[in-house]
Amino acid sequence: MWYPEEFDVIVVGGGHAGTEAALAAARMGCATLLLTHNIETLGQMSCNPSIGGIGKGHLVREVDALGGAMALATDAAGIQFRILNSSKGPAVRATRAQADRVLYKAAIRQRLENQPHLQLFQQAVDDLLLDGDGSGARVAGVVTQTGIRFRARAVVLTAGTFLDGKIHIGLDNHPGGRAGEAPAQRLSARLKELQLPQGRLKTGTPPRLDGRSIDFARCVEQPGDGMPGSDSAGRPLPVFSFMARPEMHPRQLPCWVTHTNERTHAIIRSGFDRSPMYSGQIEGVGPRYCPSVEDKVKRFADKGSHQIFLEPEGLSTHEFYPNGISTSLPFDVQLALVRSIEGLERAHILRPGYAIEYDYFDPRALRSSFETRQIGGLFFAGQINGTTGYEEAAAQGLYAGLNAGLQVRGQQPWLPGRDQAYLGVLVDDLVTQGVSEPYRMFTSRAEYRLQLREDNADLRLTAIGRELGLVDDARWSAFSRKRDALARESERLKSTWVHPRTLSAPEAERVLGKAIEREYPLFELLRRPGVGYEALLSLEGGRWRPSPAVDVTDDPRPLVSRETLGADYEAVVEQLEIAAQYAGYIERQRDEVERSAAYENLRLPADLDYHQVTALSIEVRQKLTAQRPETLGQAARISGVTPAAISLLLIHLKRSRSRDFAATGAA
Amino acid sequence: MWYPEEFDVIVVGGGHAGTEAALAAARMGCATLLLTHNIETLGQMSCNPSIGGIGKGHLVREVDALGGAMALATDAAGIQFRILNSSKGPAVRATRAQADRVLYKAAIRQRLENQPHLQLFQQAVDDLLLDGDGSGARVAGVVTQTGIRFRARAVVLTAGTFLDGKIHIGLDNHPGGRAGEAPAQRLSARLKELQLPQGRLKTGTPPRLDGRSIDFARCVEQPGDGMPGSDSAGRPLPVFSFMARPEMHPRQLPCWVTHTNERTHAIIRSGFDRSPMYSGQIEGVGPRYCPSVEDKVKRFADKGSHQIFLEPEGLSTHEFYPNGISTSLPFDVQLALVRSIEGLERAHILRPGYAIEYDYFDPRALRSSFETRQIGGLFFAGQINGTTGYEEAAAQGLYAGLNAGLQVRGQQPWLPGRDQAYLGVLVDDLVTQGVSEPYRMFTSRAEYRLQLREDNADLRLTAIGRELGLVDDARWSAFSRKRDALARESERLKSTWVHPRTLSAPEAERVLGKAIEREYPLFELLRRPGVGYEALLSLEGGRWRPSPAVDVTDDPRPLVSRETLGADYEAVVEQLEIAAQYAGYIERQRDEVERSAAYENLRLPADLDYHQVTALSIEVRQKLTAQRPETLGQAARISGVTPAAISLLLIHLKRSRSRDFAATGAA
Repeated sequence: MWYPEEFDVIVVGGGHAGTEAALAAARMGCATLLLTHNIETLGQMSCNPSIGGIGKGHLVREVDALGGAMALATDAAGIQFRILNSSKGPAVRATRAQADRVLYKAAIRQRLENQPHLQLFQQAVDDLLLDGDGSGARVAGVVTQTGIRFRARAVVLTAGTFLDGKIHIGLDNHPGGRAGEAPAQRLSARLKELQLPQGRLKTGTPPRLDGRSIDFARCVEQPGDGMPGSDSAGRPLPVFSFMARPEMHPRQLPCWVTHTNERTHAIIRSGFDRSPMYSGQIEGVGPRYCPSVEDKVKRFADKGSHQIFLEPEGLSTHEFYPNGISTSLPFDVQLALVRSIEGLERAHILRPGYAIEYDYFDPRALRSSFETRQIGGLFFAGQINGTTGYEEAAAQGLYAGLNAGLQVRGQQPWLPGRDQAYLGVLVDDLVTQGVSEPYRMFTSRAEYRLQLREDNADLRLTAIGRELGLVDDARWSAFSRKRDALARESERLKSTWVHPRTLSAPEAERVLGKAIEREYPLFELLRRPGVGYEALLSLEGGRWRPSPAVDVTDDPRPLVSRETLGADYEAVVEQLEIAAQYAGYIERQRDEVERSAAYENLRLPADLDYHQVTALSIEVRQKLTAQRPETLGQAARISGVTPAAISLLLIHLKRSRSRDFAATGAA
Repeated sequence: MWYPEEFDVIVVGGGHAGTEAALAAARMGCATLLLTHNIETLGQMSCNPSIGGIGKGHLVREVDALGGAMALATDAAGIQFRILNSSKGPAVRATRAQADRVLYKAAIRQRLENQPHLQLFQQAVDDLLLDGDGSGARVAGVVTQTGIRFRARAVVLTAGTFLDGKIHIGLDNHPGGRAGEAPAQRLSARLKELQLPQGRLKTGTPPRLDGRSIDFARCVEQPGDGMPGSDSAGRPLPVFSFMARPEMHPRQLPCWVTHTNERTHAIIRSGFDRSPMYSGQIEGVGPRYCPSVEDKVKRFADKGSHQIFLEPEGLSTHEFYPNGISTSLPFDVQLALVRSIEGLERAHILRPGYAIEYDYFDPRALRSSFETRQIGGLFFAGQINGTTGYEEAAAQGLYAGLNAGLQVRGQQPWLPGRDQAYLGVLVDDLVTQGVSEPYRMFTSRAEYRLQLREDNADLRLTAIGRELGLVDDARWSAFSRKRDALARESERLKSTWVHPRTLSAPEAERVLGKAIEREYPLFELLRRPGVGYEALLSLEGGRWRPSPAVDVTDDPRPLVSRETLGADYEAVVEQLEIAAQYAGYIERQRDEVERSAAYENLRLPADLDYHQVTALSIEVRQKLTAQRPETLGQAARISGVTPAAISLLLIHLKRSRSRDFAATGAA
């Protein structure tokens, strides 16, 4: 039958990509339908119970800045929050949260159910409806398992690991889209008929443990930020969303740390002959950056121990996720390896670990908008594009849903630059380089990473999101207030001067560490190490000489205060300090990026022994050795070869003054 | 691989039967393993979001009296409670609750995770391990999908609708254990190989609706008991468990009532040619007492309207369950029929209704303990035995888990009588009569229904449960206090006499309605219509003449008071009143049952035209016509032919004084 209503956008799949895609299209006002094989699994976290981390947290904040769901759902479900790299520069600082799976799913479902213009429908999709063929083919809708035909002007496919999914545990395997769920076999076959370029990837998950059988006394407790026992005990808990407050979080729990040992590794090695990865059963390539424990033992044979985080799965369950021992070894080996680990000697496994192989489609066959080149109106997002990770999926989902919506409206796609968002980096990497293994985000993938920070994702993206129709009034008004305060205060700091004659020596000493020898604008003083915004404002008032060019406000209240900004006060102060302290570095980075672009055509010596370039990571050396790029530009485009690695390689080449090294085309 | 630990009892399946089975075996101290294909779906309500009702509520209270989980989970998840038949006698009064699906599942999972001696493991089961063969065959464990072999001394199989499950929507069908979930095909094939006698049944579920698209102004609100707008507004909310208090309930919601109409019925009839039920696609027999809407329209062609309850699915969702329009008609017909109903003109369907066919096994091949006759140690419970309903499943699960545990311990099975529990009726009906359609419980199935009440399930079963190891200390102590108070007060009422000389006429008038003409024990006065326990106790103290045979307590406090009994006070008073008021009826019922047993061998005339016996329901007339039993005893054993129907038939036979009616063997 033909379903009576016609939709602007149909999203197939209810995981992290699908839900953000559907929400984004619906926020834009498009009549949107989300089709899922099971409404109960909307927003399910299929693998680890955590969101964020370095690079990934950046994506979550960008999704949030564009009005997406992931950050707020994490704030509602998060049972432990940490700011990673908090002692390092703001560019690589990242938020990471453990989430209660049940609460997370509930938050996503509630958001979906309450989104205007969005309808949900439960049924697996077996086929696409097409209009025309060849180069003129265009998607016209989808057909469900029982033959219901839904018409739509655009379709976003977010099939996760379900397309011809195959679950492996040891040498046994069976079809499955996820543990306990059926795969999408007909849709996979249909997509193959359409001859979209495709391949197989694999991913995996560890066995899950019953917390009642873990001896926590033999593990090391790891409290979250702000929790008793942490360095930041008593400080407010971190939040993920720009719209969140720490009070939104449920009760907080610690994680626990333990380690594999030599005996664990011996057990793992004893199972290699029955490993589906090493026996050729699995053809798909797995994620290098989220390797199985057998892969770690094989690749880092000299390492006697690997760290394992025991992550609680929620407030109402004893289940634990042992992060670090993802495996597809036979179950007997899984059980033995788990029980060889300190604290897990009597652990009961609740669910075996497994690997899953699935179809993905070469993202180089996508336009930059994530529309397939072959079939107009058909967009792909998430693991189907060869990525791994909830955050990568969510970002792509929002992106594809948005661009599907723009196309329906007859507008041009939104294509963020690599200097604008990690989303821009992700999209550009995928569509220009494709993938050879599941792609995950790292800060090292971003050339402009000093400006692509978690802390400024809203400043980078919320105004754009508002223009695109993704940002609601509440977020827009909160953001506008923050942005305006920041702009005005920034202007004031730049135009307010401090003169050595009017600043007493003791006061200069107290705040700035020494006297000033000439007049400075406040903004410039804020650049000095150890000088913070609040300390600067404490400089005795009334002695500064305002710049004659600027009207100083008559309002006696400071522009930036807890009183005027409420919970955004800290964020605004942070932005002011970062703007002052990092402006120079950001400029310099931009120059460097431009300079290294000049080396695009630099030829690399044919006999260069990359293994000797010890400054590079082993991984990068292996990749360069295997692929032997001809130019530095080609090297830079190899997946996993970071801009930093390119800089190091350039330095090596210059230093070694190799005769074979000829700058034939440095433009 | 062989799993290293050996279990006493393995339960396969995590629905209502499986969870109660696993909990019961574990409560007894048996090392128990619950195997499920998906831990996330433990305790899932696959069909309607409600628990209880007439006959079913009785089973839930019996499960509760034996320490089971269903009643307490419903108290934790219930968003509307009603006492059905509250104006009728206590025997047919029954509790019914709407449950929040998410909260219900969470309550069950929490209970499972915290049950000592119980381990959970996620993996589908594909095969049974057997020791010996032929008549000596005995189950030795199970084999999972990936070949893990778990050893156990007994196995309880609770496969629900998963065995070779096939989902039908119109003429389309596909394998499925439940919407969105894979069926158990290998296990089904394996059980067929073992040649256990089996057949196919079917059940169905209605489409689910998005509450945002329902016009509630056109429906009639139905508040729960104790809620504003109900007859019992302001009174405490009912509870399900003997251990529950109304404060355990979450926020309460109303249901809504609407109706089908002639147009709805015309739409339904227009789909008959594409109905899998009428086109022969479905072979399995469906539940007569929970018919699809197409069945209702076909069977009751003269009825212009059927009632539909719009039941909320939970506190955090807009989803509604339209109870009364279960259907497997094609989706276009479903959509049209829904939208033809008042209030649903613009309704959006979230999930289509469907029918599911599945394997069941003839319960006549079970021993009374629910152990299969063919394979020692293998127990069946739930839909696999041909039943329908969460409550029937839970009761069987508890029963099978208990008897598996008793077998492991080397003890005799517990076999409750038909006069002891609905559980006894259920078991006896199944193993002696088998099923011709999915079996559900009714109070009419119980000959001794005056004594098998919801209110006394604890008095009937908790002491037995304690002896069997099913009842924990907290329940036992609460129960003992209640039982002791009841026994002592009952004794006191029987031995405390009121004499006309010492009772003033106005006082007698006030409490008893008239003066007493002779001396009475208080217990006998309590039998009088309109005389309640509290009123009786208000009779002026000190004027009663205590029986010389009884020591009256010196304690001036009443034996039964809110002070001594707390929240059990009402329950004890209720028991005292029921004991006094119904003792006679209960006696009489017992006599009647015994008398009718005498008619066991009464021969029925071969040409008796049952359609003329208008006192019988149409259904009973149809069944008797179709099966033509030879004796009244055989008639009584036909599924759906109630004891009441047998009495009516007996009266008819006596009245008609048929010449063919010969009492050849009234013993």
